[in-house]
Amino acid sequence: MYELCIFAEDKFLQQIQQSKLNIMKIRFNSDYIEGAHPAILQKLSETNTLQQPGYGTDDYCEQARTLIRQLCGMPTADVHFLVGGTQTNTTVIASILRPHQGVLCAETGHINVHETGAIEANGHKVLSLPSDNGKITAQQIEQAYSSHWNDENHEHMVQPGMVYISFPTENGTIYSRSELEAIYATCQKCELPLFVDGARLGYGLAATKNDVSLEFLAHHCDVFYIGGTKVGALFGEAVVITAEKLKKDFRYLIKQKGGMLAKGWLLGLQFLTLLENGLYFDIAKHADKMAQMIHDAFAAKGSLFLYDSPTNQQFPILKNADLEKLSEHFVSDFWCKTDATHTAVRFCTSWATRQEDVEALIKTIRNL
Amino acid sequence: MYELCIFAEDKFLQQIQQSKLNIMKIRFNSDYIEGAHPAILQKLSETNTLQQPGYGTDDYCEQARTLIRQLCGMPTADVHFLVGGTQTNTTVIASILRPHQGVLCAETGHINVHETGAIEANGHKVLSLPSDNGKITAQQIEQAYSSHWNDENHEHMVQPGMVYISFPTENGTIYSRSELEAIYATCQKCELPLFVDGARLGYGLAATKNDVSLEFLAHHCDVFYIGGTKVGALFGEAVVITAEKLKKDFRYLIKQKGGMLAKGWLLGLQFLTLLENGLYFDIAKHADKMAQMIHDAFAAKGSLFLYDSPTNQQFPILKNADLEKLSEHFVSDFWCKTDATHTAVRFCTSWATRQEDVEALIKTIRNL
Amino acid sequence: MYELCIFAEDKFLQQIQQSKLNIMKIRFNSDYIEGAHPAILQKLSETNTLQQPGYGTDDYCEQARTLIRQLCGMPTADVHFLVGGTQTNTTVIASILRPHQGVLCAETGHINVHETGAIEANGHKVLSLPSDNGKITAQQIEQAYSSHWNDENHEHMVQPGMVYISFPTENGTIYSRSELEAIYATCQKCELPLFVDGARLGYGLAATKNDVSLEFLAHHCDVFYIGGTKVGALFGEAVVITAEKLKKDFRYLIKQKGGMLAKGWLLGLQFLTLLENGLYFDIAKHADKMAQMIHDAFAAKGSLFLYDSPTNQQFPILKNADLEKLSEHFVSDFWCKTDATHTAVRFCTSWATRQEDVEALIKTIRNL
Amino acid sequence: MYELCIFAEDKFLQQIQQSKLNIMKIRFNSDYIEGAHPAILQKLSETNTLQQPGYGTDDYCEQARTLIRQLCGMPTADVHFLVGGTQTNTTVIASILRPHQGVLCAETGHINVHETGAIEANGHKVLSLPSDNGKITAQQIEQAYSSHWNDENHEHMVQPGMVYISFPTENGTIYSRSELEAIYATCQKCELPLFVDGARLGYGLAATKNDVSLEFLAHHCDVFYIGGTKVGALFGEAVVITAEKLKKDFRYLIKQKGGMLAKGWLLGLQFLTLLENGLYFDIAKHADKMAQMIHDAFAAKGSLFLYDSPTNQQFPILKNADLEKLSEHFVSDFWCKTDATHTAVRFCTSWATRQEDVEALIKTIRNL
Repeated sequence: MYELCIFAEDKFLQQIQQSKLNIMKIRFNSDYIEGAHPAILQKLSETNTLQQPGYGTDDYCEQARTLIRQLCGMPTADVHFLVGGTQTNTTVIASILRPHQGVLCAETGHINVHETGAIEANGHKVLSLPSDNGKITAQQIEQAYSSHWNDENHEHMVQPGMVYISFPTENGTIYSRSELEAIYATCQKCELPLFVDGARLGYGLAATKNDVSLEFLAHHCDVFYIGGTKVGALFGEAVVITAEKLKKDFRYLIKQKGGMLAKGWLLGLQFLTLLENGLYFDIAKHADKMAQMIHDAFAAKGSLFLYDSPTNQQFPILKNADLEKLSEHFVSDFWCKTDATHTAVRFCTSWATRQEDVEALIKTIRNL
Repeated sequence: MYELCIFAEDKFLQQIQQSKLNIMKIRFNSDYIEGAHPAILQKLSETNTLQQPGYGTDDYCEQARTLIRQLCGMPTADVHFLVGGTQTNTTVIASILRPHQGVLCAETGHINVHETGAIEANGHKVLSLPSDNGKITAQQIEQAYSSHWNDENHEHMVQPGMVYISFPTENGTIYSRSELEAIYATCQKCELPLFVDGARLGYGLAATKNDVSLEFLAHHCDVFYIGGTKVGALFGEAVVITAEKLKKDFRYLIKQKGGMLAKGWLLGLQFLTLLENGLYFDIAKHADKMAQMIHDAFAAKGSLFLYDSPTNQQFPILKNADLEKLSEHFVSDFWCKTDATHTAVRFCTSWATRQEDVEALIKTIRNL
Repeated sequence: MYELCIFAEDKFLQQIQQSKLNIMKIRFNSDYIEGAHPAILQKLSETNTLQQPGYGTDDYCEQARTLIRQLCGMPTADVHFLVGGTQTNTTVIASILRPHQGVLCAETGHINVHETGAIEANGHKVLSLPSDNGKITAQQIEQAYSSHWNDENHEHMVQPGMVYISFPTENGTIYSRSELEAIYATCQKCELPLFVDGARLGYGLAATKNDVSLEFLAHHCDVFYIGGTKVGALFGEAVVITAEKLKKDFRYLIKQKGGMLAKGWLLGLQFLTLLENGLYFDIAKHADKMAQMIHDAFAAKGSLFLYDSPTNQQFPILKNADLEKLSEHFVSDFWCKTDATHTAVRFCTSWATRQEDVEALIKTIRNL
Repeated sequence: MYELCIFAEDKFLQQIQQSKLNIMKIRFNSDYIEGAHPAILQKLSETNTLQQPGYGTDDYCEQARTLIRQLCGMPTADVHFLVGGTQTNTTVIASILRPHQGVLCAETGHINVHETGAIEANGHKVLSLPSDNGKITAQQIEQAYSSHWNDENHEHMVQPGMVYISFPTENGTIYSRSELEAIYATCQKCELPLFVDGARLGYGLAATKNDVSLEFLAHHCDVFYIGGTKVGALFGEAVVITAEKLKKDFRYLIKQKGGMLAKGWLLGLQFLTLLENGLYFDIAKHADKMAQMIHDAFAAKGSLFLYDSPTNQQFPILKNADLEKLSEHFVSDFWCKTDATHTAVRFCTSWATRQEDVEALIKTIRNL
């Protein structure tokens, strides 16, 4: 156990070491391993010395807000730009809940697992619901709600105060139109605001199997965000608040939770560039296509998959020996051991994934 | 669903209505339905007009502290008196953890289920571990610890920072000497302070099957409390801090979390009365005996039990029809439906339970 | 400095030592140095073995609620019983504010000075306003409000979200009818809920100079409490919520913040006893009269007073030599040094103060 | 008042309107109105498609860490990169304090005034000390410390747990070597970690009157940061932890508080570029020189200054008529009205300020 501790202490250095070993390999381990789409860097350069007011009061932000409202078919939505996902989740949730309320969420949800307890640090319990593919159902929400209110000791328990889902989920899966409709209808009946984490929104909307449009999404939740960090931007998430009662004083919350960028126009400029001519959707489609190619290569070799993902994350279950071979040239993300001889990993593509790298990977897969 | 809402809004009034209906029945639904042991009321009367300094700086508190240290065989322990259990759990846990840390606990633990998110409201995630009888094991703790530190993303996850167990548990079960030893050894290896919730401590220590003494307990955890509210006092919990590093500034925390009673001597006086001549242990033994009689009556009728409890809480599984019949004269606590025709309930005894009431109950059980 | 540190570490033990030295003296140092009015102990004894439902759902609480609504002329008010003052302040304020809001309050207010940062621990800044007698004015509130909203960076600042005043204040002073009217009118204009801390409410209402009735108070704030701990009860504060929008889910907050007493009927019973036949007001009037006698004795000797208090706390400024002499037989509360040769102290009376003790004190004062 | 409210609601839109009116003017209103130093954009472009590991485990971050340790003469310091100032202050302070502790700070400190209560939202009171130029003294710290520990009710008060100062302060002033030495010595005696907010650190170090070096600073506090956002970077603050006991688990805190940038190498790359060849110090010196020129022009016209600032912020007190005239072509930052006919404003320069713009301003000043 003590050895374990020492090991742990050195984890951070180890990660850096490992990074160096991986330096010559092609990375498919996440969708935030490159900078920004060149069009964004271009815009940053062009506007670098133009003086701008701070904190999102500039004209780029205003134009981006208008554009997002149009794309959402939501002329009255409030739009805010924040830096990163954890921060955005924290800010939205802290803005909505009262102290005795918690947020319903899949047990695999990012806020439940990978944000170092940021929601709890803001005072709220994450009320996790079982899920085997990252999704939850309208029925689960209704049940959680009823079960709370029907418990005679409900005042001694955390009250469900809102619902958090991701589109796509952590497992690459997406909600269908009808699933989303059912969830939103339930949320409205139960008076639970529905919040959709769209850190990878583009990859969900661009999926071939997807039947949810940006406009449909905007009309079937109370607040959501359009993820930039993982879809072409250097960083940035665009929060869209559609429910009137959730709008009040949101900028105070952004500031308090550390998400109000001094040079706020950097966010507006990036979203403007991404959304002006559909760039956001084009590059997401590219990523999904690359992911599908990887998926098909594994499938052709008879691999099973942990989740049925139509988006930029693929979760093949590989023989350990095969994984070892692949790892000589390619970096994937360890997901879990499925049995003594098999491991599930994540292959991730992004707007920046080069087709030649995918083809090199496929060739190696074929030769396994 | 809307009807559900309206129903919910009226819950509190309903509870009061229900209380009135139950007014002529004999209550076995909890262990805090009577006032205090008469010896305590006597002491309160005798000392009522004697002027005392506030906030636990009085002489009764000091005497009670000394006595508790003696009973624990822990001359250097710090002893503090708080008003109630939720408050005590919150204060101890908030005092120990840093912001990124959580508390390991059985999924059925009081802090995870029945404190309206008080731990989260203080910023910490409750890291729940599966349990089917309210207990957790040394192995589960070790596994949770290793699994955290071996996860390469551990900095994105809540770090286990301490362990919370109850003695007895919510299900009436108790840890054996060897179980407690194993848990404490693991906690020490992993540098996780061990906190024992003793809201019903007396009923655990007095159980016939129990092999853990107060002194043994005090030497096998870092902080615990001796519950008064449920074992003879009007209210009050005596926190015993045995680990040196957990002692610092604890009184600040008590004040901040609302647990520092202005008339603090009321707490010292009650614990002094309870502990001076072993009264605490005598009345707990009585309660356990009454509970055993109820247990045996149900067992004689062939009832199964949800948990194997040697303490003052018994959880028989009853035919719905039998439960209905019993409920005409006795109040028990609904626990859960086990199938369409059976219900598990809790029968609770206390220091105040009258043998004649238990005999009346047993007679009714026999006639089912 | 290091010596200072060591000194500090021993403070708690020193307090206990000091308590022992004071044991033969007559205490006027606070209003929570005796137990409860005998009528309360009597009731506790009479009802001790009657079984009651928990958490305030019992009949005594319900009767006390009805009575309080009647006394307030507020048939629709919500009434809740909590254990102590810090807890009550924390719970009410946490229930009202959103995360970016703070509470306006006199810089001397209890929540700003003597609650170990409980309000901040719940996430909110105390926005303190200058005050030289414990009171704040309608104008100060309006100014703080305007100054916030007129600041172009207001989103970077804590938003005033409610107002906290005490009746009487920490300095024994009280608000007049017209002052309270002006404050409440301003609060309503600015949409700032007004919360009145009534930990010593009885002593304020009973003051001869007072023109505010319980009913008037109830109609000129949004939430307040009737203090029991300092006015005849063993402990307990009765929160009265008059504003409709502040009522929702308050019991969840009580539970989360640790104020929901398991044996809740102990609170209802005490308030019922105190309020049924005007006992609360009679004993408060007695305390105020005793305080006035002390005041007059000091005034007759030419003493000045730090505050002009018509209630149970008096703040004479004494020559150090005189204070020393008084301290041989009487305990007062150190307030501050006013210059090298003078000290301001607090003399406090209560429902329990004996006239013979006051007369002994007055005799000593005359002989200074 | 109601009009005021409506006004307030429209503030955000007004700010945007105002921004448009200012669009043709030259801005001196803050030091974050331009993008990044061109060398940074260049580096971002060059490295844009190189795949990097996330969250600061990349090689650029590692190189920047090494460089910063060298520049600080602190081979064992921990270095972390965060996105913005509020976030950094929150994270550092939350990492250090226990729940009952607060942070000593000038009443004008950024954390006390302009972070929407972020420190309180993390549970801690800001213990403000009077200051008329943004600085506090060793004596004030010692006094606050002693006054706490000498108060017999100290457990009812927030305990001073650390000290926060800014270098330079909000008012452009800087601490001298001897002042800093005295403060740090006091902090060490009182066991109060000293945290230096260096959001504008470059401008302080580069000031001609300054006698504090980066290395000296690093050896006279426990944790500080090198501000990037306001000194040449797009965004970013480099936290340097020199005290051993403050290092543990800091990355968890960064993640929880939302400051761990997914594409962390963007931060390392920027700091590497700024610090590699002294660029950071060169551009800061330029800004200070430009500010001095503005200062001298106002001084030559007989203006007084609110603070004696040797850094990039200047606070002249102007006749209202003069200010109006200047505002036709230049944007400054309103600070306060000093009397009916005078207003203090802030003129701010930065690494990006063009000498020709300063000369245009000076010319206008001369013609007032």
